[in-house]
Amino acid sequence: MQRITDGTITSPKGFLSGAATCGLKEKGAMDIALILSEQDCNGAGVFTRNEVVAAPVIVDRQVLADNPTKLRGVVANAGIANACTGPEGLQACKRMQELAARCAGCAPEQILVLSTGVIGVQLDLGKIAVGIEHACRHLSANNGKDTARAIMTTDTRPKHTAVRTALDAGEVTIGGIAKGSGMIHPDMATMLAVLTTDAIVPAEALDGMLRKMMDRSFNRISIDGDTSTNDTVLLLANGASGVTLQDDAAKAAFEEALEAVCVELAHDIVRDGEGASKFITLQVCGARSPDEALAVARTIATSPLVKTAFAGGDPNWGRIFMAAGKANVALNTERMALWISNGKRDDFQLVDKGIPLEYDENQAEAIFAEDEILVRLDLGLGEADTTVWTCDLTHEYISINADYRS
Amino acid sequence: MQRITDGTITSPKGFLSGAATCGLKEKGAMDIALILSEQDCNGAGVFTRNEVVAAPVIVDRQVLADNPTKLRGVVANAGIANACTGPEGLQACKRMQELAARCAGCAPEQILVLSTGVIGVQLDLGKIAVGIEHACRHLSANNGKDTARAIMTTDTRPKHTAVRTALDAGEVTIGGIAKGSGMIHPDMATMLAVLTTDAIVPAEALDGMLRKMMDRSFNRISIDGDTSTNDTVLLLANGASGVTLQDDAAKAAFEEALEAVCVELAHDIVRDGEGASKFITLQVCGARSPDEALAVARTIATSPLVKTAFAGGDPNWGRIFMAAGKANVALNTERMALWISNGKRDDFQLVDKGIPLEYDENQAEAIFAEDEILVRLDLGLGEADTTVWTCDLTHEYISINADYRS
Repeated sequence: MQRITDGTITSPKGFLSGAATCGLKEKGAMDIALILSEQDCNGAGVFTRNEVVAAPVIVDRQVLADNPTKLRGVVANAGIANACTGPEGLQACKRMQELAARCAGCAPEQILVLSTGVIGVQLDLGKIAVGIEHACRHLSANNGKDTARAIMTTDTRPKHTAVRTALDAGEVTIGGIAKGSGMIHPDMATMLAVLTTDAIVPAEALDGMLRKMMDRSFNRISIDGDTSTNDTVLLLANGASGVTLQDDAAKAAFEEALEAVCVELAHDIVRDGEGASKFITLQVCGARSPDEALAVARTIATSPLVKTAFAGGDPNWGRIFMAAGKANVALNTERMALWISNGKRDDFQLVDKGIPLEYDENQAEAIFAEDEILVRLDLGLGEADTTVWTCDLTHEYISINADYRS
Repeated sequence: MQRITDGTITSPKGFLSGAATCGLKEKGAMDIALILSEQDCNGAGVFTRNEVVAAPVIVDRQVLADNPTKLRGVVANAGIANACTGPEGLQACKRMQELAARCAGCAPEQILVLSTGVIGVQLDLGKIAVGIEHACRHLSANNGKDTARAIMTTDTRPKHTAVRTALDAGEVTIGGIAKGSGMIHPDMATMLAVLTTDAIVPAEALDGMLRKMMDRSFNRISIDGDTSTNDTVLLLANGASGVTLQDDAAKAAFEEALEAVCVELAHDIVRDGEGASKFITLQVCGARSPDEALAVARTIATSPLVKTAFAGGDPNWGRIFMAAGKANVALNTERMALWISNGKRDDFQLVDKGIPLEYDENQAEAIFAEDEILVRLDLGLGEADTTVWTCDLTHEYISINADYRS
């Protein structure tokens, strides 16, 4: 498996993309993205678990149910979420399908739609039409980065990657773009991602692989514990490489590549989390079950007091214990141990058997002063472990969210 | 029922309190509190549901199990939580009981203990002993306000109240002190409260009433969603008024007074929440069940995106819908409606049937610019409703928690 420099959704064969400015965002930023395949794709999608869902989520679920083997592409807008917009919003979403389908020369039901931005505002279809037309005229295999930029909201940088892997039957490529960066939480909050591949993969297998990868990547990250109305991850396989996943080894290699793309995009989202200044890897081990490990890890990763301690560079392990204790998982404090690390030296143990060791506070502070911190909490109850990624909670998060209407 | 000006835990007959500085807090602030009854009390307590509990929580649970009718008082310290301190911490807690019992002239097992502050640090028993001795020498019915001050951590003001109610058999008084102000969340996080009354109430009845009142007061507030290792609410009834709750009417009147004390202290905690600039009353109605109403209300009350919108004075109802949708409660967006109010004029409706009305944005902003805001969300699914109270999430919260070690 090989990472492609500046890789993106058009790194796999047979995918083109375009981006345009239609005036939904302020300051003339790009806000329309079009991703089309030259041939029909198999596809899969994973959506928000929020009970309040945006029009595109409703439409895409239907498209994937009806046409999982005849997909031709994705049209996306940023600036307006098309959520809480009722029947008018649903019509607008279908109009986006029609406009993109006209460009692709296919039926509207072969197009998936993504929207992100403010909730409760109707789309201006005049602007959208101009934008899609412009993006259509500039379709190319070389502007995947602009396409990633066009789906951004409070993101500060575009997120894109691609990897290539050599299977016995030939080489296949997987690419992806994603956006964050508030309301990020398992399950996926205000997160959009589009993944493309030129491998030949049946729709059902794609669906299984996408769900498996979600649990190893996007569902392991948390910015603020909020989940959105629009979260969507789409995976399109157009088969343009002519390469099938013919045996278990090929399937495993493909999954490994898919996981690498998903994990890289997930990490990019955390690193670019609203106001984030630190990247935190949180390992919980010694749990009775993977579910319990994950419950404890997620509770720590969403605790405002833990996240502000990270922001302040304060190795305040008491807050980590406090957060672990509220996960509705039975714990035995006397068995709990905690290590921290900056990834550059050996782990540094702060707590054993629930009681602080006589550690050097300066050394602990030096580790917490780093941009990347690893925290390992051993519950001492069993063999299960898990890893989640999160960021700190800073003044900048407040500034972004007290002022920006998202 | 009548609210007593500057009421506190010593407003009921037969209670004395003292406060002292022993050096656990910085800057010579008071950090030891002693509350004693002149005669044995019946008592009840409610404790944190966090799995990681401090030594005083372990000790108090035992005291209430063994001696619910022979309690003589409470000794408290602020500055150090005595949590994650192992057997040494448990010994220190028992030593606090002994020192307070010596002052009260009773057995150590008749004394309850409270601690709040930094986790994972051992108490300095030399300082504690000097502090308790000093508080003992200054016991009086007139320094309940200082006693409330002595249990503060990041609180900016002492929280105390008392009410008097006339029953057929005579007058009884209920008083209370409390502290917040981070890690505040149902169920009670880093919150301490001591309630006293001179009514004659059996221990079992006290326990039932205290639990009922929790669900109407302290368990309805949220500052940041974090819950602590030390949360405790204690209720002591010394019977010094000679008045029993002889019938249902008397019991109801007493409960009403107890609720008033609990709600006032709970509101005080929210108003003094870390960095709080706004007091938010959140009503969720039209739910299928009280549990579902509460789940939705709590999810909104803990959403960082909702709370930063309040901080920014932004009537961003989309975030409220988003937050409602992640409560694991089945919703029908098309039935949802939302009103806001500053309590001074009629409710102002923003959303009907899931779609924004054509409301005047300036008017909505004017309401959100107030210090006190009421938000009412109708789920349109049933008859159940609930109310919770919360505050906004501000820069000041980050400053307090990125710098202060709690």
